[in-house]
Amino acid sequence: MPASNSLPSAVAHQVHIDLGERSYPILIGSGLLDDPDTWRGLPRAAQAVIVTNDTVGPLYGPRLAAALSAQYAQVHTVALPDGEQHKTWESLNAIFDALLARGCDRKTVLFALGGGVVGDMTGFAAACYMRGVPFVQVPTTLLAQVDSSVGGKTAINHPLGKNMIGAFYQPRRVVCDLAVLKTLPARELSAGLAEVIKYGPIHDLAFLDWLERHIDELRRCDESALAHAVRRSCEIKAAVVGQDERESGLRAILNFGHTFGHAIEAGLGYGQWLHGEAVGCGMVMAATLSQRLGLLSADRRERLRALIERAGLPTRGPRLAADNAARYLALMRVDKKAEAGEMRFVLVDDHGQAHVRPAPDALVAEVIEACCD
Amino acid sequence: MPASNSLPSAVAHQVHIDLGERSYPILIGSGLLDDPDTWRGLPRAAQAVIVTNDTVGPLYGPRLAAALSAQYAQVHTVALPDGEQHKTWESLNAIFDALLARGCDRKTVLFALGGGVVGDMTGFAAACYMRGVPFVQVPTTLLAQVDSSVGGKTAINHPLGKNMIGAFYQPRRVVCDLAVLKTLPARELSAGLAEVIKYGPIHDLAFLDWLERHIDELRRCDESALAHAVRRSCEIKAAVVGQDERESGLRAILNFGHTFGHAIEAGLGYGQWLHGEAVGCGMVMAATLSQRLGLLSADRRERLRALIERAGLPTRGPRLAADNAARYLALMRVDKKAEAGEMRFVLVDDHGQAHVRPAPDALVAEVIEACCD
Repeated sequence: MPASNSLPSAVAHQVHIDLGERSYPILIGSGLLDDPDTWRGLPRAAQAVIVTNDTVGPLYGPRLAAALSAQYAQVHTVALPDGEQHKTWESLNAIFDALLARGCDRKTVLFALGGGVVGDMTGFAAACYMRGVPFVQVPTTLLAQVDSSVGGKTAINHPLGKNMIGAFYQPRRVVCDLAVLKTLPARELSAGLAEVIKYGPIHDLAFLDWLERHIDELRRCDESALAHAVRRSCEIKAAVVGQDERESGLRAILNFGHTFGHAIEAGLGYGQWLHGEAVGCGMVMAATLSQRLGLLSADRRERLRALIERAGLPTRGPRLAADNAARYLALMRVDKKAEAGEMRFVLVDDHGQAHVRPAPDALVAEVIEACCD
Repeated sequence: MPASNSLPSAVAHQVHIDLGERSYPILIGSGLLDDPDTWRGLPRAAQAVIVTNDTVGPLYGPRLAAALSAQYAQVHTVALPDGEQHKTWESLNAIFDALLARGCDRKTVLFALGGGVVGDMTGFAAACYMRGVPFVQVPTTLLAQVDSSVGGKTAINHPLGKNMIGAFYQPRRVVCDLAVLKTLPARELSAGLAEVIKYGPIHDLAFLDWLERHIDELRRCDESALAHAVRRSCEIKAAVVGQDERESGLRAILNFGHTFGHAIEAGLGYGQWLHGEAVGCGMVMAATLSQRLGLLSADRRERLRALIERAGLPTRGPRLAADNAARYLALMRVDKKAEAGEMRFVLVDDHGQAHVRPAPDALVAEVIEACCD
């Protein structure tokens, strides 16, 4: 990791993720990708392999490869098909095939250049190849920058469940280049903002206030505003995950809005709404439930709803069936099945704290009806 | 882990593997499999899953399932086809399919009942399923009892290389039931003895002396002799691995005899000689090289060769080609390719210490010729 006095000049912020010998820095700034200084101090190896997809690869792959060539004698690129439906064993094996065909040894460093799918698969490939090689996250979506930068979760999907096969495995460095967000479709930027907004109500009301003042700049990709939003999101996630690396309990608060959101995604069919869109709407539902349970004031709920709307996200849920609330409840139960026992919700209060609690089905059904078109 | 005052009465020895919060005990004794006490104190779960193969499963699966039913409400069994050629993604996925089809959650405990192949695959499945579930090793071959009990290596093969995809992942407990070795073919018992003998010259000459006195009892499956041999092997491997969990250097001494042995296995085609047979012969070659380099006396070399012979193992190498030594050297270089740079050998001296060093090709070729038929 670069000493702070030798950081590339483009680094606006650095967040240190403290995990003992597995600690790593998150570098946040504009133009980091092209700067050879960004990549100094990583593990030495003869070979580096960029894993990307066929959308991001053509845009940024050659530039990253050029910057890495100052450090690594050979830089290979593996481009996978783009999309969650390709987060499979077949894609993972394509990475292994490429690594073995090129004679990559256990020192080879992998670079995940893309969104969450590329990051999850590359991280899992790094965890397993020769029982573990170093890897670096280069997230190119806002969602990936604020979500997969911290936590060490890697996985692929199985036909019988999402993210069922994976590992906890930490990157050596995360590089969030804000300039690449300029080529992100506006809809995906908004989806990423849902996960940024999430960190406010569960942990930091001052950040939520800041977001209310800067949401328009964020949607315009103002780099200074993005730098602060990404930094603060990573810091908050690190504070939560740092106390719960293996996901035994506290980390559940990061799922604020996700239980309702998963029902929307599953009910409409995955891919109809973006994950962030479903989470945005899910947060409105979770906040409404928090209000009905007396934890959150009507004013705070409305401010959160208005912010989500200004972020370009839906705030009203889709109707999923004639018996709409029952359908939502059934889908939420399936999502939680693996955990066994009663369904618990992430709720928020007026003090920026999250609470994980069960809620009566009848009340949840009322909230769903109140929040759906 | 059971407190020592509540160990099942069949436990002859217990070896503690000290890895901080990932520490675990190895229980060694006769009749452990059937004793419900053997399985007390493991992580609680609704479901336990025995992963085995179609050779061992019919012999011991129902007995293990019966003993586990005292602890777990549901005990499932997954039987994979027997053989190294099935140590593949397809078999691994068969485990995942079974776990998901039965609704196994992240608390489910896996039990690896079989030899090294079952242990490697089950351990890797446990490492990846929902990013990690607990598992227990129940090795049913002598080789697996003395080798895969310690070290945390799990893996599957890839068409382009053995053990290329895997993880370091520790079991919660290892149960070495010596009674099951009575159904092991004599040839496989001898192959396991190769790995037992290995621990003497690299670390403990007193153990080597003990082996010279008890080799006939071991071949007769005398349980008292087996208990000591398994215990001491595990202790020595633990001492070596404990200083080098992620395999950065010292652990290489455990490969005594393996560089020559791999050339024999690859040259004859995998499966012609058992791994342990190739290692037995490989140890004679490595000892001969040690002698030629002035590290080992002729007497010590001959005593080791005689012990390997009494264990029922080959001590003369097969001829692999007209230009025999060149063929061996080429195969050894391929085996070491992933490490890059010059070939290094594990050598031993008269004091029970191992040394990892390069050796001149011409000398290695002479040793090969002297040791082949």
